[in-house]
Amino acid sequence: MYRLVIDPQQKQGNCIILKSDQEHYLRRVVRLNSGDDFIAMDGRGNCWQVKLTVTGNEIVTSFRENRELTTAVSLIVALPKGSGFEDIIRCTTELGVTKLYPAISDRTLLKPKENKLERWRKIALEAVEQSERQILPYIAEPMPIKVLFEQFKLNNNPKYIASARSNAPHLMEFCQQDFQDNPPSEIIIATGCEGGWTPKEIENAIASGFQEVSLGKRILRAITAPIMVMALVASYSEIFELKSE
Amino acid sequence: MYRLVIDPQQKQGNCIILKSDQEHYLRRVVRLNSGDDFIAMDGRGNCWQVKLTVTGNEIVTSFRENRELTTAVSLIVALPKGSGFEDIIRCTTELGVTKLYPAISDRTLLKPKENKLERWRKIALEAVEQSERQILPYIAEPMPIKVLFEQFKLNNNPKYIASARSNAPHLMEFCQQDFQDNPPSEIIIATGCEGGWTPKEIENAIASGFQEVSLGKRILRAITAPIMVMALVASYSEIFELKSE
Repeated sequence: MYRLVIDPQQKQGNCIILKSDQEHYLRRVVRLNSGDDFIAMDGRGNCWQVKLTVTGNEIVTSFRENRELTTAVSLIVALPKGSGFEDIIRCTTELGVTKLYPAISDRTLLKPKENKLERWRKIALEAVEQSERQILPYIAEPMPIKVLFEQFKLNNNPKYIASARSNAPHLMEFCQQDFQDNPPSEIIIATGCEGGWTPKEIENAIASGFQEVSLGKRILRAITAPIMVMALVASYSEIFELKSE
Repeated sequence: MYRLVIDPQQKQGNCIILKSDQEHYLRRVVRLNSGDDFIAMDGRGNCWQVKLTVTGNEIVTSFRENRELTTAVSLIVALPKGSGFEDIIRCTTELGVTKLYPAISDRTLLKPKENKLERWRKIALEAVEQSERQILPYIAEPMPIKVLFEQFKLNNNPKYIASARSNAPHLMEFCQQDFQDNPPSEIIIATGCEGGWTPKEIENAIASGFQEVSLGKRILRAITAPIMVMALVASYSEIFELKSE
């Protein structure tokens, strides 16, 4: 059944009031007719099966479902060139990311345009609908990486910075420890752009309590690194849940 | 230093004989000049640091390096729509895939064009150069999924088929077992295209000794699933190596 993320205030009584672009999309693109059902989700875990009608859209049943990770994953991503960050949003949203912090690092070439954030959030929304998640990941305004490291300094959850060509231990070794007994409420991981981090950036990260980690022996593109990170942490989080059920 | 995959027969004595397109690329795109060094790799683990000259290209040093996984990973991928398989080649090659088997499943919409395979292999080659791998992944001709399941029937290594919306155990649970003591020489994993596998396809896979697995609670796109699989298996393979060093 087709899924649509709505604003919480679009639920009014027993109806879901669609915006004109949403109604247009359901009728013209998804090709639903009056009387067909779809699922509306408020991005906070509330879901409604709704019947499409011309006079308001009546809620058939409401339910809660949960495909979310119990450990929140915050990814700090030094912006790659081109539209690479869009691929990162798509894949990591499917894999369960909680917060994305696009960062401007010393080697970042991309100058994000004014309206980028709006486009990025739209991509995340589509990925939420597609992957049937309940929560819309938060995407921050692009910020200088130095500011972000500083900002996370007082966050005492596990913090990692991925680097290539280092002798740092593999991220997986830390995940094994983090998810041994009491998984953390949040994990924060930073990945670099083309050309990687500068030594100074690694230094700043470590000074803010980040642990340097390897993602394996091969040199990953800036797009692949955060997807790999997300695949790994999501698997640990879900496996832990299963063990403790 | 720039990396280039060459055919083994391009090494002649103490020289690397470049093809005209390779020489053009190094001089015009990478902008190397005579006297600059690059690295030539034969896709079998042999590497040479080479000095670019107008009269043959002299080998400075030869070396072997190894960024390859000890467990070979064969991915059977039901072809997604559009150019999705190209993204899969890029990311999974970076992550260390050994063999890619593009498959035509019941729900595959893409009809691959004649010259597709050539293009796919070129993408793999570029990803090898970028990720500094030594081995060029093998990409098979697209084949009906039924033929592939049949073909892998006699292969006794661990074989998995990923499916969404099933109650199958998570792939990670099997990886934990597979990499406990003696990691397998090969792992085979099949991922579906948009719409997933048909019940009959799952049945065929199981009859050929494949184990159904989950990749988590969220619904992944056909592009994301093989990347996630590869991230997970590569991590297990590398962690096992480190443990046994």
